Amino acid sequence: MDGYTLTHKVPSRKDFIDTADFDQSEILDIITTSRTVREFIKSGEYLNSLFHKSLAMVFEQKSTRTRVSFEVAMEQLGGHALNLAPGAIQLGGHETIEDTAQVLGRMCDLVMSRVDRHESIEALAKYSRVPVINGMSDRVHPTQGIGDMITIFDYWPTGKEAKDIKVVFVGDATQVCNTLCEMTTKMGMNFVHYGPANHKITDEWLEIGRKNNEKYGGTCIWSEDPEVLKGADFIYTDVWYGLYDKETPKEVYMKDFYPKYQVNDELMAATGNPNCKFMHCLPANRNEEVTDSVLDGPNSVAFDEAENRLTAQRGLVLYFGRVAQATLDYIKQQKEGK
Amino acid sequence: MDGYTLTHKVPSRKDFIDTADFDQSEILDIITTSRTVREFIKSGEYLNSLFHKSLAMVFEQKSTRTRVSFEVAMEQLGGHALNLAPGAIQLGGHETIEDTAQVLGRMCDLVMSRVDRHESIEALAKYSRVPVINGMSDRVHPTQGIGDMITIFDYWPTGKEAKDIKVVFVGDATQVCNTLCEMTTKMGMNFVHYGPANHKITDEWLEIGRKNNEKYGGTCIWSEDPEVLKGADFIYTDVWYGLYDKETPKEVYMKDFYPKYQVNDELMAATGNPNCKFMHCLPANRNEEVTDSVLDGPNSVAFDEAENRLTAQRGLVLYFGRVAQATLDYIKQQKEGK
Amino acid sequence: MDGYTLTHKVPSRKDFIDTADFDQSEILDIITTSRTVREFIKSGEYLNSLFHKSLAMVFEQKSTRTRVSFEVAMEQLGGHALNLAPGAIQLGGHETIEDTAQVLGRMCDLVMSRVDRHESIEALAKYSRVPVINGMSDRVHPTQGIGDMITIFDYWPTGKEAKDIKVVFVGDATQVCNTLCEMTTKMGMNFVHYGPANHKITDEWLEIGRKNNEKYGGTCIWSEDPEVLKGADFIYTDVWYGLYDKETPKEVYMKDFYPKYQVNDELMAATGNPNCKFMHCLPANRNEEVTDSVLDGPNSVAFDEAENRLTAQRGLVLYFGRVAQATLDYIKQQKEGK
Repeated sequence: MDGYTLTHKVPSRKDFIDTADFDQSEILDIITTSRTVREFIKSGEYLNSLFHKSLAMVFEQKSTRTRVSFEVAMEQLGGHALNLAPGAIQLGGHETIEDTAQVLGRMCDLVMSRVDRHESIEALAKYSRVPVINGMSDRVHPTQGIGDMITIFDYWPTGKEAKDIKVVFVGDATQVCNTLCEMTTKMGMNFVHYGPANHKITDEWLEIGRKNNEKYGGTCIWSEDPEVLKGADFIYTDVWYGLYDKETPKEVYMKDFYPKYQVNDELMAATGNPNCKFMHCLPANRNEEVTDSVLDGPNSVAFDEAENRLTAQRGLVLYFGRVAQATLDYIKQQKEGK
Repeated sequence: MDGYTLTHKVPSRKDFIDTADFDQSEILDIITTSRTVREFIKSGEYLNSLFHKSLAMVFEQKSTRTRVSFEVAMEQLGGHALNLAPGAIQLGGHETIEDTAQVLGRMCDLVMSRVDRHESIEALAKYSRVPVINGMSDRVHPTQGIGDMITIFDYWPTGKEAKDIKVVFVGDATQVCNTLCEMTTKMGMNFVHYGPANHKITDEWLEIGRKNNEKYGGTCIWSEDPEVLKGADFIYTDVWYGLYDKETPKEVYMKDFYPKYQVNDELMAATGNPNCKFMHCLPANRNEEVTDSVLDGPNSVAFDEAENRLTAQRGLVLYFGRVAQATLDYIKQQKEGK
Repeated sequence: MDGYTLTHKVPSRKDFIDTADFDQSEILDIITTSRTVREFIKSGEYLNSLFHKSLAMVFEQKSTRTRVSFEVAMEQLGGHALNLAPGAIQLGGHETIEDTAQVLGRMCDLVMSRVDRHESIEALAKYSRVPVINGMSDRVHPTQGIGDMITIFDYWPTGKEAKDIKVVFVGDATQVCNTLCEMTTKMGMNFVHYGPANHKITDEWLEIGRKNNEKYGGTCIWSEDPEVLKGADFIYTDVWYGLYDKETPKEVYMKDFYPKYQVNDELMAATGNPNCKFMHCLPANRNEEVTDSVLDGPNSVAFDEAENRLTAQRGLVLYFGRVAQATLDYIKQQKEGK
């Protein structure tokens, strides 16, 4: 990582709606930007690449990690994030989404939104003049995906190539699972969804993964067989029920997942890999989908992963704000003492 | 617009409660500041005139445009806006408005508030040490008024003088209508409220408009006769019911306004002016007070008008923050290459 | 105040949970930092000591003064405060406090929280990597305490030493009373809680005060006898019922406190000191615990005290952000014209 040169100077799309919309080199550009800027900020050198720029954050659902990481990212880069909390703007309420998108695009430089329905983020992107970033929809969680891949890069198993790396998502096929499937296969890794048949990843996503495999290598499967845990480099899990869909009674989802899909010491041991890392997008329902012993254990990288939400958001706002290359050039100059 | 000199160096009043409190030259000073700063920022030159200054935004009602435009304006000028959302401070709840005003005035440099009752903004202004800006009350919407006049300046009909310009507000006499009446007549233009008798602009406002006419020229009338549309340069409308007064059933207000006062292609054609512009303060109830064909049509300047909320707020915080002249001097120096 | 040197360069504790955790010299360091920075900012010289730094503000209860003062303090010092309003993060709700603390500590540089239960602020501090400031718990209100002591310093009775100063807290022994007891005795002053037996300050706090007396001088008592008002330099009061504990009916608390403990002209006169100052943490229930005549009278310093919330927060974020000495050094250099 010495050149800090991006492959593309300009993203092929204005908006970051789904990682599947971008090719491998573009995703690597975002990751390179994110990791390089992190290195620079850790050394105490902040940047003002987004000085006087504003990001509108529109939340249809509560968020801690996404909101805090975007707000801090913008401030660290000299800009500002406006928090339009749930209820502050009702997308498609008083005003059509199209009109809200137009207005925000006239006043702000970037828009990020966490939406109930994927159609809403697509409408925001279509009608807004400025780049729109998907802060999670019911379909995908692409900013989480970038942070997760940064974490995998940070904990890259020594001596392995992408085609030797196995990432197993355990439990319910949430939008985090969909995006992880897309990202790992795009990087040419081996992806497994290990979960019950009635919560399995859709065939659409398995197909997206397999298309990535054809292009970049790796494999993509779903299985209920604990044999698939063998040789995993990363075990990933998420909560067993939608945080905002409280209607599923605990008994129902516990019956589906517990105890087979709980990530505990036994499940981690079943990988046969003492260096297998544990990942979780958080928040966790401790001792449901993951035990304290694993989440707080030596192999857990879940809190580094949370910190990498911030790492990723900095890269994303620079990349889609079209100043990533200028920032990397500046960093390079600074390093070379010019 | 080469001199960038303001007529007054200091506003005659600390607070911006109502456009009617200011004379024509003061309003022109605000507009000049706003438009000049916009020009400068569009060229990529940001300003730090309000570096380290804080604006407290107190909302008794939800707001998208007012909130986003003030927050972005402060950040673009180097300052910061605090969002005290509805419920965060209950004016006259736990604490008297007078005490809240004193406390905010001790901590912040400027206060802006959207209030339920006009008396509340007056009390905030009276007891606060610092300038208070009215972000809309049940009586007037003066920051909207500045943005609207900037939009009229931007789309000034070629070859016309103020006394030849006709602005017709169609529909319900909201606070936006009151302020438009005051602003257009203060600029020496011709104002018409075209709406049903049971929703007509009050005689008090017509009288204010006529007093402006005596001083600055122009005319000011209310009428139900569609003849008044003839020769209009600007058709303006607003929703047919208070956004926050949901109690009026749709059937009632539809009966009052529909179809006669809907701004559609037919009504626009009735002006006889193919260049007549369409304005709306937004949000719109599409296909109630205005049809998609007009709002999205080539003559609509409604989204430019929304963008001019930001243009206006920059001018207002500079003018009432008492740094407008210093800012314009700085811009002039920069332009002259000093 | 010419040296601007702090006694301690580094606080003995990472977190500011309770003033009782710090010795007199540390408290004086915070006060010196606060007052010196105020002087500098008043002269128009802002500082960027916290440039690019973020403070997460987590509120379990509504707040005006604490929120506005911290947010403005951070911005004036070049940083940023994130407002996590009540409901934005539910401490111990979706996620354990421990996990929330870890995540915030990974993304932000400082955390401030107003909590329902004192245990919550202790847990945030324990699990967060970064300094945590207690923005009020059910036990203490330490940031208020620093602001109050700054106000007492600002209005120091001419010619008196700490051991001659008498501070009387009148009414209900709220958390503000506890902290005032701790702070005044730590400064070697004489503290009195004058209130009804069923609302008296606990023996634990009286004991803490007496231990301070042994070390630093002064006295510490509770009494129902109006004789204790004699010779007071400062009369302090707070509301008669918890702002957030609306269940106590007005009749009940009025019977306990009214009219004996209302701070009115008569009670102020009973001090026998025409220069006795009146303090209140605000918000006030006017004409319950204090009359308009006293709160708005010439001896009231309640609004200066509110302004000193901002003075205190600047000192606190600099001190616990570990940049207080560097900031004071910078101020000194600037003053010496270097």
